[in-house]
Amino acid sequence: MQVGMIGLGRMGANMAQRLQQGGHEAIGFDPVPEARARLAAEGLGSVDTLEALAGALEAPRVLWMMVPAGAPVDATIAALQPLLSPGDILVDGGNSFYKDSQRRADALQQQGIVYLDVGTSGGVWGLAEGYSLMVGGDAAASARLSPLFEALAPAPDRGWGHVGPSGAGHFAKMIHNGIEYGMMQAYAEGFAILQRRADLVPDIAGLAELWRHGSVVRSWLLDLTAQALAGNPGLDGIAPYVPDSGEGRWTVAEAIELDVAAPVITQSLIERLRSRDGEAFADKLLSAMRDAFGGHGVKSTRPAAGP
Amino acid sequence: MQVGMIGLGRMGANMAQRLQQGGHEAIGFDPVPEARARLAAEGLGSVDTLEALAGALEAPRVLWMMVPAGAPVDATIAALQPLLSPGDILVDGGNSFYKDSQRRADALQQQGIVYLDVGTSGGVWGLAEGYSLMVGGDAAASARLSPLFEALAPAPDRGWGHVGPSGAGHFAKMIHNGIEYGMMQAYAEGFAILQRRADLVPDIAGLAELWRHGSVVRSWLLDLTAQALAGNPGLDGIAPYVPDSGEGRWTVAEAIELDVAAPVITQSLIERLRSRDGEAFADKLLSAMRDAFGGHGVKSTRPAAGP
Amino acid sequence: MQVGMIGLGRMGANMAQRLQQGGHEAIGFDPVPEARARLAAEGLGSVDTLEALAGALEAPRVLWMMVPAGAPVDATIAALQPLLSPGDILVDGGNSFYKDSQRRADALQQQGIVYLDVGTSGGVWGLAEGYSLMVGGDAAASARLSPLFEALAPAPDRGWGHVGPSGAGHFAKMIHNGIEYGMMQAYAEGFAILQRRADLVPDIAGLAELWRHGSVVRSWLLDLTAQALAGNPGLDGIAPYVPDSGEGRWTVAEAIELDVAAPVITQSLIERLRSRDGEAFADKLLSAMRDAFGGHGVKSTRPAAGP
Amino acid sequence: MQVGMIGLGRMGANMAQRLQQGGHEAIGFDPVPEARARLAAEGLGSVDTLEALAGALEAPRVLWMMVPAGAPVDATIAALQPLLSPGDILVDGGNSFYKDSQRRADALQQQGIVYLDVGTSGGVWGLAEGYSLMVGGDAAASARLSPLFEALAPAPDRGWGHVGPSGAGHFAKMIHNGIEYGMMQAYAEGFAILQRRADLVPDIAGLAELWRHGSVVRSWLLDLTAQALAGNPGLDGIAPYVPDSGEGRWTVAEAIELDVAAPVITQSLIERLRSRDGEAFADKLLSAMRDAFGGHGVKSTRPAAGP
Repeated sequence: MQVGMIGLGRMGANMAQRLQQGGHEAIGFDPVPEARARLAAEGLGSVDTLEALAGALEAPRVLWMMVPAGAPVDATIAALQPLLSPGDILVDGGNSFYKDSQRRADALQQQGIVYLDVGTSGGVWGLAEGYSLMVGGDAAASARLSPLFEALAPAPDRGWGHVGPSGAGHFAKMIHNGIEYGMMQAYAEGFAILQRRADLVPDIAGLAELWRHGSVVRSWLLDLTAQALAGNPGLDGIAPYVPDSGEGRWTVAEAIELDVAAPVITQSLIERLRSRDGEAFADKLLSAMRDAFGGHGVKSTRPAAGP
Repeated sequence: MQVGMIGLGRMGANMAQRLQQGGHEAIGFDPVPEARARLAAEGLGSVDTLEALAGALEAPRVLWMMVPAGAPVDATIAALQPLLSPGDILVDGGNSFYKDSQRRADALQQQGIVYLDVGTSGGVWGLAEGYSLMVGGDAAASARLSPLFEALAPAPDRGWGHVGPSGAGHFAKMIHNGIEYGMMQAYAEGFAILQRRADLVPDIAGLAELWRHGSVVRSWLLDLTAQALAGNPGLDGIAPYVPDSGEGRWTVAEAIELDVAAPVITQSLIERLRSRDGEAFADKLLSAMRDAFGGHGVKSTRPAAGP
Repeated sequence: MQVGMIGLGRMGANMAQRLQQGGHEAIGFDPVPEARARLAAEGLGSVDTLEALAGALEAPRVLWMMVPAGAPVDATIAALQPLLSPGDILVDGGNSFYKDSQRRADALQQQGIVYLDVGTSGGVWGLAEGYSLMVGGDAAASARLSPLFEALAPAPDRGWGHVGPSGAGHFAKMIHNGIEYGMMQAYAEGFAILQRRADLVPDIAGLAELWRHGSVVRSWLLDLTAQALAGNPGLDGIAPYVPDSGEGRWTVAEAIELDVAAPVITQSLIERLRSRDGEAFADKLLSAMRDAFGGHGVKSTRPAAGP
Repeated sequence: MQVGMIGLGRMGANMAQRLQQGGHEAIGFDPVPEARARLAAEGLGSVDTLEALAGALEAPRVLWMMVPAGAPVDATIAALQPLLSPGDILVDGGNSFYKDSQRRADALQQQGIVYLDVGTSGGVWGLAEGYSLMVGGDAAASARLSPLFEALAPAPDRGWGHVGPSGAGHFAKMIHNGIEYGMMQAYAEGFAILQRRADLVPDIAGLAELWRHGSVVRSWLLDLTAQALAGNPGLDGIAPYVPDSGEGRWTVAEAIELDVAAPVITQSLIERLRSRDGEAFADKLLSAMRDAFGGHGVKSTRPAAGP
């Protein structure tokens, strides 16, 4: 099957390659020459304009976007619209907010274009191990693209599925990432406690490796954790600074909107915010309050004066 | 290798069986005839007194306790002490508190008996899939028992290890369970949010199955979750009532003692407490306070009067 | 000073009355006859159309809305716009979202109308004790209305202030309510623990009263809590069901947007969501998972069968 | 009434002084000369041995300890025991763990000595404003000391009370401090959010002052917060480092022991632990995990190399 891959960052390039390996014809597009060069090195063709991409694909076309969520997706759609024809299928495989995907699908439907939101998990390992794909949108269009999904997934019959109408794919991916935040935080806390008792359990990398087999907490995230700890058990040189990328926030907002208590996913997000706050005004104020009622004094940020 | 298995509940019986399958000779002990009968049905021998067990084993003996944490372990040790000889090895494979294990190891050492604390994970699936074993205590004794560990583990070279001195095995298992609490809560919250949007993602059992392959959140707990949801997607008939069994509490207490922030593991425990509190006095008081300052009224527990 | 009070619910009616007591002339408006009748019983005049209200006030007019946040505020503004003249001041004293207030102020400014957002705290006790007023918007307009603020506040020189540009008043009120959620939850948890140890502290209402004097936790919320507990120490008949009214959610969303960790305010909101979730799907799933890996069984929602 | 005050730190010295002002005779004891000198400067007598103190008091004696919780209390009791007679009353006014107080009361009762545990709140402001006193232990002995409580409390008829049997006073104080942790954290978070929006609310010290009058969140802690912010609105020079002093931990442990969900009090404690953890191994591991599955890179602790 022929597919145009829009956005040749790591995710897009890897997916194009896996599609090609699966017997499909992936034509890449990226305005950045280096991105196209990486694809060429793998023997895949690419073009440098959307016009060229649209021209290179037989109608009805299949286009797959792997571009950053938000404005870049809207800009890409705006640029594509004059180039597409009724019956074309446009896939958003990125981490878009599901309500944006619903809005975009509605708008494109006016023009006879089918918009599928495909939540994609697997990260940098997807090329080798396959991607988990959650497809939202028109069921018939999803069925039409099943050869692509089968090639991208870990195996043709598993790891992908049509999960619901427009928005459902990105909704499912959003929740997936919320769960991921909670799992990661659970492991991080556990190993942080262990690390304080090196007198008792000196080799936490070894313990992580041990748990990979037979324990209740075995998981792919643990596999990666064990690998990270094996290479650098003290995590030397790594700052305690944790970004977050939108989907955790959306999950928290969605839970509140739906009146569902999600304390652990929420707290996992909050911990990431906390990790990036070097100032911690709240803690300063707590310290000031303790001093005010109890005369406890405060720890000063100023170095102690010399003799 | 010959081993006496003390306590033939599900864990003990399964482990005896797996040891036997691994070429070892497991002799069971349980005061309950039904427990011994189950073992006999599997072709394993058992005795009904500790005296008989001690007599049946060649010195230096290897005894493995799978009894409930706390008083039952102390009682078993007290009953065993007169029957054991220097050089014997006593294993506690249960979920004991690691400081208890340290105390017990110290006490038995006086008598020349080696006490190993072996944190054991794997649950009811361990018989088929193998157990994860975290061994604490004397390294030489651990090495002596390696044939047993190799048989119990998922494979001889993985899933078990000597993790540190006395207490380290149960300490590691305690943290393991703390992590498990956090992971479970993360999944539970995610699926609870999904379940409220059945309009968008109607088949959450299918989504759980999908995620098992290629997604970042794939894990053994997810495998079980997918299975549970497949059989009963609405979780009908299951009360929202979640017990906790000690290790979560100990992990929380340990984190606080060590000044380590473990908000997610802690909150996972608190949610279990909350799930069992039908009264929720705190919520009643919040409702009363809102009424007191805002005149918002309260929801009554009394059914509305008829017309 | 003359002021038109729009919305004669408890808050609006009480504020009109306090203004009148302070020597101002408050003219009420409410479409509901009963609401006007209550005002009349206090000797205050009111009208039944906004047209009549606009006609009754001398220009430049001062109008003060106490209507529910959201659509009702927009509807009131839309109905008022043709009736107002440049130089009029319109106050929103309700619990509007601060970004809505900024938008409304911008729109009305086009027409030469000044819009002030006045966060108002004090609840049903404000009539007797005065209101806390956080004024956002044009400083000169705020100064012009100072006689009204002085009458509404607990004392002319305290409890009110111009806190910043448009939106600042409602922003400050939003944070105020976030703090309120956290404080309420802290008290609620403390008394819930105490209530479980009635063997030790049998009279928690008495303890609440005791703490009102000299303790570090003394506060107005504690005064109300003591009063609520004095009348009903077991909180009998009150369901553990706690509504939330928007500002807690907005505070949580704002904290996340600003990358500020606010775990306690957030958790206080989550506990309210939890209090209203009779089903607790997450807890059901936790129970199912425990059974799946540990064979622990689940608590059934079905009553046990008879003999 | 005559009373021996043991421990002349700030709390003990202030309380001795307030008792003296209330018409009682307070005789101080402290091994540290400077502590006794401070008392002398206020015109109060003191001695430098417990023997001298016991000798100076008429039987039945009243002794009041204000010494640090834990070992110092046990040491003081051990030193006092040979010096006391049946009928003497010994008060522990410090922050002891309530189970310790129960144990001590039981032990002293053997000797005919009454032990009262008096939870004391009020901090450095107690001298001027009075202390909140929660009395646990024998009711008759509590009644006998009522003149002392009346002098220490904010007013004779309020702010103190006999709250239950031995341990109840310190139990109540423990919960009091747990609530205090939650309230402090709620304020701290609210002001931390505000501080990020100085564009909107530039004067948070002024807002704190405003809220002191008429708002729902008015409290004594807010009074102190307003004062602290007024003097140093940016909290310059104060490190975001918050100690905790035992009672928060005990409250958390007690809540868990009683199966009461106390998420906010617990999270307030955890935030303090977090504030003191400069390393934050958990956050480092989260960062490493993100890099491992997503190739997101990590923030390095090493300064970027020069050109």
